Amino acid sequence: MQNLSAVLSSGSRLTIEDRPAPEPGHREVLVRIGAVGICGSDVHYYEHGRIGDHVVKEPMVVGHEAAGTIVALGRDVEGRAVGERVALEPGVPCRNCVQCLSGRYNLCPDVVFFATPPVDGAIAQLVTIDAAFAHPVPDGLSHEQAAMAEPVSVGVWAARRAGITAGDRVLVTGAGPIGLWAAQVARAFGAVDVTVTDLSDFRLLVARDLGLDARRVDEPMTSEYDVLLECSGVQPAVTSGMAALARGGRMVLIGMGTDRVSIDLPLLQNREITITGTYRYANTYPLALSLLASGVVRVEEIITHRFGIEETEAALTLARRDPQSLKAIVCPQVAGAVVAGTAPVAF
Amino acid sequence: MQNLSAVLSSGSRLTIEDRPAPEPGHREVLVRIGAVGICGSDVHYYEHGRIGDHVVKEPMVVGHEAAGTIVALGRDVEGRAVGERVALEPGVPCRNCVQCLSGRYNLCPDVVFFATPPVDGAIAQLVTIDAAFAHPVPDGLSHEQAAMAEPVSVGVWAARRAGITAGDRVLVTGAGPIGLWAAQVARAFGAVDVTVTDLSDFRLLVARDLGLDARRVDEPMTSEYDVLLECSGVQPAVTSGMAALARGGRMVLIGMGTDRVSIDLPLLQNREITITGTYRYANTYPLALSLLASGVVRVEEIITHRFGIEETEAALTLARRDPQSLKAIVCPQVAGAVVAGTAPVAF
Amino acid sequence: MQNLSAVLSSGSRLTIEDRPAPEPGHREVLVRIGAVGICGSDVHYYEHGRIGDHVVKEPMVVGHEAAGTIVALGRDVEGRAVGERVALEPGVPCRNCVQCLSGRYNLCPDVVFFATPPVDGAIAQLVTIDAAFAHPVPDGLSHEQAAMAEPVSVGVWAARRAGITAGDRVLVTGAGPIGLWAAQVARAFGAVDVTVTDLSDFRLLVARDLGLDARRVDEPMTSEYDVLLECSGVQPAVTSGMAALARGGRMVLIGMGTDRVSIDLPLLQNREITITGTYRYANTYPLALSLLASGVVRVEEIITHRFGIEETEAALTLARRDPQSLKAIVCPQVAGAVVAGTAPVAF
Amino acid sequence: MQNLSAVLSSGSRLTIEDRPAPEPGHREVLVRIGAVGICGSDVHYYEHGRIGDHVVKEPMVVGHEAAGTIVALGRDVEGRAVGERVALEPGVPCRNCVQCLSGRYNLCPDVVFFATPPVDGAIAQLVTIDAAFAHPVPDGLSHEQAAMAEPVSVGVWAARRAGITAGDRVLVTGAGPIGLWAAQVARAFGAVDVTVTDLSDFRLLVARDLGLDARRVDEPMTSEYDVLLECSGVQPAVTSGMAALARGGRMVLIGMGTDRVSIDLPLLQNREITITGTYRYANTYPLALSLLASGVVRVEEIITHRFGIEETEAALTLARRDPQSLKAIVCPQVAGAVVAGTAPVAF
Repeated sequence: MQNLSAVLSSGSRLTIEDRPAPEPGHREVLVRIGAVGICGSDVHYYEHGRIGDHVVKEPMVVGHEAAGTIVALGRDVEGRAVGERVALEPGVPCRNCVQCLSGRYNLCPDVVFFATPPVDGAIAQLVTIDAAFAHPVPDGLSHEQAAMAEPVSVGVWAARRAGITAGDRVLVTGAGPIGLWAAQVARAFGAVDVTVTDLSDFRLLVARDLGLDARRVDEPMTSEYDVLLECSGVQPAVTSGMAALARGGRMVLIGMGTDRVSIDLPLLQNREITITGTYRYANTYPLALSLLASGVVRVEEIITHRFGIEETEAALTLARRDPQSLKAIVCPQVAGAVVAGTAPVAF
Repeated sequence: MQNLSAVLSSGSRLTIEDRPAPEPGHREVLVRIGAVGICGSDVHYYEHGRIGDHVVKEPMVVGHEAAGTIVALGRDVEGRAVGERVALEPGVPCRNCVQCLSGRYNLCPDVVFFATPPVDGAIAQLVTIDAAFAHPVPDGLSHEQAAMAEPVSVGVWAARRAGITAGDRVLVTGAGPIGLWAAQVARAFGAVDVTVTDLSDFRLLVARDLGLDARRVDEPMTSEYDVLLECSGVQPAVTSGMAALARGGRMVLIGMGTDRVSIDLPLLQNREITITGTYRYANTYPLALSLLASGVVRVEEIITHRFGIEETEAALTLARRDPQSLKAIVCPQVAGAVVAGTAPVAF
Repeated sequence: MQNLSAVLSSGSRLTIEDRPAPEPGHREVLVRIGAVGICGSDVHYYEHGRIGDHVVKEPMVVGHEAAGTIVALGRDVEGRAVGERVALEPGVPCRNCVQCLSGRYNLCPDVVFFATPPVDGAIAQLVTIDAAFAHPVPDGLSHEQAAMAEPVSVGVWAARRAGITAGDRVLVTGAGPIGLWAAQVARAFGAVDVTVTDLSDFRLLVARDLGLDARRVDEPMTSEYDVLLECSGVQPAVTSGMAALARGGRMVLIGMGTDRVSIDLPLLQNREITITGTYRYANTYPLALSLLASGVVRVEEIITHRFGIEETEAALTLARRDPQSLKAIVCPQVAGAVVAGTAPVAF
Repeated sequence: MQNLSAVLSSGSRLTIEDRPAPEPGHREVLVRIGAVGICGSDVHYYEHGRIGDHVVKEPMVVGHEAAGTIVALGRDVEGRAVGERVALEPGVPCRNCVQCLSGRYNLCPDVVFFATPPVDGAIAQLVTIDAAFAHPVPDGLSHEQAAMAEPVSVGVWAARRAGITAGDRVLVTGAGPIGLWAAQVARAFGAVDVTVTDLSDFRLLVARDLGLDARRVDEPMTSEYDVLLECSGVQPAVTSGMAALARGGRMVLIGMGTDRVSIDLPLLQNREITITGTYRYANTYPLALSLLASGVVRVEEIITHRFGIEETEAALTLARRDPQSLKAIVCPQVAGAVVAGTAPVAF
């Protein structure tokens, strides 16, 4: 079987190679990948060859937001079938450590995560994964919608870490894909007043298309919030977002990109604000897929570009080239063509 | 009735005045004060005339860690009696706002708090307080022990905010009175491994007398902690304390004194650490008094000095003068004499 | 001022009397009542003269689900104005006891609750209430919608006690007004699959009109639920509802009417099911009003009958007479006429 | 290697057989068992041949409270060593299902649990177990102390399910081994007032030896409790224990033996009491072992009898024969002799 794969080497070199088809191991399934989203971390590895201590030393397949169809079953896989459509949860934890056994497997020190060196990722035509992490996709969801269960999971996890419940007023700073999905998820958790801020008029327009209250980050805030979901990763957003929190407010720092953040200590204390960060997610895929299937969380306005696998490099450079882009999708089964425009690709 | 009171005016001027005895109002009791602890905030008002936006504009009685004996009842006070010994919870909230009705009355914007300008404090011979905030003192506790329910409450509140439970490993940075009490409280919540750090060998010695594991703050850490109770208010302790936390660790910033703290964002995210601050406490007095009565939390090693009311100024300058001091107590019923030494005063 | 009031005496005697207009006391407001819902407890007092230990010994005004307009302010009421429309939270707690100070004021032993003997209720033209318990009504809500913040609060409290969050599958047994509102509230908390059961085809039809999944209670269950909101108060619903819960399920017993319930102990243990009951509610009114204002929770399908104040007795006997009735509203400002039909009354 | 094992057949027939030594599988260790506690469930299988749906159809080794020494490692076992002393957590879950991945692996439907038919138990000289469930034993604990991490885990899990925290007043009904350990655990979680009730004067005496407040179950209760840990499994204890709970009280039904319990519904609702059951435990062993090692939880007063493996049947009939027995231990390495008296056996 052909298995075109998008391989990143050092020096920002991305090539499309036909790698040997993988064999599904014990309790694994083999998935024919239908769609993979491009994440900022993929772009970062492409541009810098590393994220923190994770360095691309050997050629590595990129991509970790993937969905597809099961085409083969490994040994001891029960209750699953060839032809079943699945979303791939990209991190498979050890399931033996303290973190795993207590339910926060996202903090497993031995997790194997797609496209985190040296582990190969999912922009390939064929990928194997532990069956427990290949989540059944509800009817009616396309591959690209199902693939978005990954960034939606980031929002679900943030909502859980923030303890969002009915009636909460939620501020989301940063209207990139993560912010736009987190805002929709907050609404699904019962938030009654969800505001998204950004500097980009284009992004604010998309936010409004999603029915969200959207404002420029430099507009004065007229309300107090119970929760801040910080998705921009920049200090000014942390500072102004925290100042907009009510007494007892909770803030979750999702955005990355800076090494240190500075916090107003008297504000933290006087209002008893709680701060936490998120590291990936745990036990979120079924809910993320359910929210996508019910239409409560939408992808249509956020997926702005689609590419065939041979155009993966164009997908990785899109954000730099086009300020009016949000989420790019690579379709591994579309070998050569550019898949332009806004209509999803059916297989 | 004589009512000697320790009055702070602008310019670090502290005088002892015989003020008119207050009348207990509706649902209030009149308390003959037996002991009042000196807190860092008292010292700060004395030295600087302000804490943040709170400025001493008019003469104000200082002190807010107080206990004594009820000597008169106001109207509509039920179930209380003259002669009853009480610990005074120094902040009386409005009980009508959202914060009060939801049980976190410490965040009430209209709280009236002893010795926070312009409200008079408790270093006086007679003080009135809402009966619901005059907590019955268990038999066997002295006035000065009962007065320490205030700083012990800070520890109880921190332990609750941190969610300390059986088996937690707890690091306490800063072995001043607050740190030493917070460490003992952590143990009462079931923490199995409580370590206190400081720069002062004297304070570490006291910590060891209390049965705590104590180390110099610059010693290498050999263990991971579930909880950090930061009681020093300095950046290096925040930084090293946070680095000593295990995945999923919780840290509570209790120490004040700096306007901003800098946080390692990747660390916060990768370990999903939770940070919060404390602002006073709510619903802590009964437990604090119970812990003091059972001997689980001790004051004997921490109260190092005692003063008569006329020596209040000496009590306020003690910390500056004597590095081997910890908590100072003023005894308002001891009008003139210095109460030296380590033995508590009985009335 | 005229103040027609619906007064219940012993022997199921209900009379309409013109009582003296009450004066708003300290921190109270005087409210001209626009609408009052009839609750099962009102009917029970009317029919039996008692509920448990609460006995109607002296004539008592009935009704506790009320909304209206402020017409006068007592002393020390701040930030409120004549003309403001308010929903009346019917239980005013002491705010001094352990329960009140810890935020669960619904458990206050000294609460004063409308239409619980000997306290007068709200089916009257004029009623006084503590200002903190007269909640501002969002624009666009009618008096009768605002009055329904009371039974909606029962649902909000149950949802909070059950910890309903996004993705939960919720079973509601009993499609009376409480069940129908609790089901809508569950959806507002993010429940993805809300099923309502009842024996009455009429009630199931109303449930379907509200967009809920509705089934006869004797249909076989095809799904597992995370949460059971038991609103019928009968043993078979408790038994079958509990059996439909998944591992770790939570059940809230809201329905009253039986003295004892029998629980399957091995089921409770093997699935680690959690059971609790609700007693009124605390801190729910702002959310209940917000859910009503946004249209997420609807009253139109549930309010089936409206009456003028002189027809209060007809309102109290409605449920017995008409199996196709759900919630009845009494309009105290409509002195004589029967207000028939389904259209709400505007004042 | 000899591997004497205590094998239960149908008809209450218990034989000691020398079975083939098991081989440690993938990620498993082979343990030479030092001590095994006799649990009520072992006795029940011996006497009745079944517990509910679990029927002893084929000969089965009994016992599940075990500790010993690693004597061999299977493939891919890391960080463990021959000679290491371990306590065996008797249920090994699948680690792939929703329950396992969310941290409550005790509810895993595919758990493999010692001495639950048809799985062999631990009263044998040699047993294999997944390495992640062979918990390192702190220095200073004997095998029999370490084996008691199993019933102590029941107490830890109950304390967690009850949310016991500092200051809680806890009532434990039933002073058998589970009750006596649960009471000690409650104290370790910070409970300030722990009362144990029973009908047996002998058991109450043991409770007092452990420093617990102990009373006959028919004495009038003089206090209100925050938590009830019901360990007797009989209706009167459930009824009177629940009535002794304060508003907002929590009760955990640990005791088994009855199919249904009857609950006072108005009491449940008026006090908003929460009820739950426990099913085994999850993530408790490290804490249980730590509590045993620190001496906070004691076994000396509760282990009343010890037997060599050939006397296993005598151990199983002990409770029936001797009302002054509590926990019996079988020592599999003591092949023939009865190990009488109160002194633990060292190997």
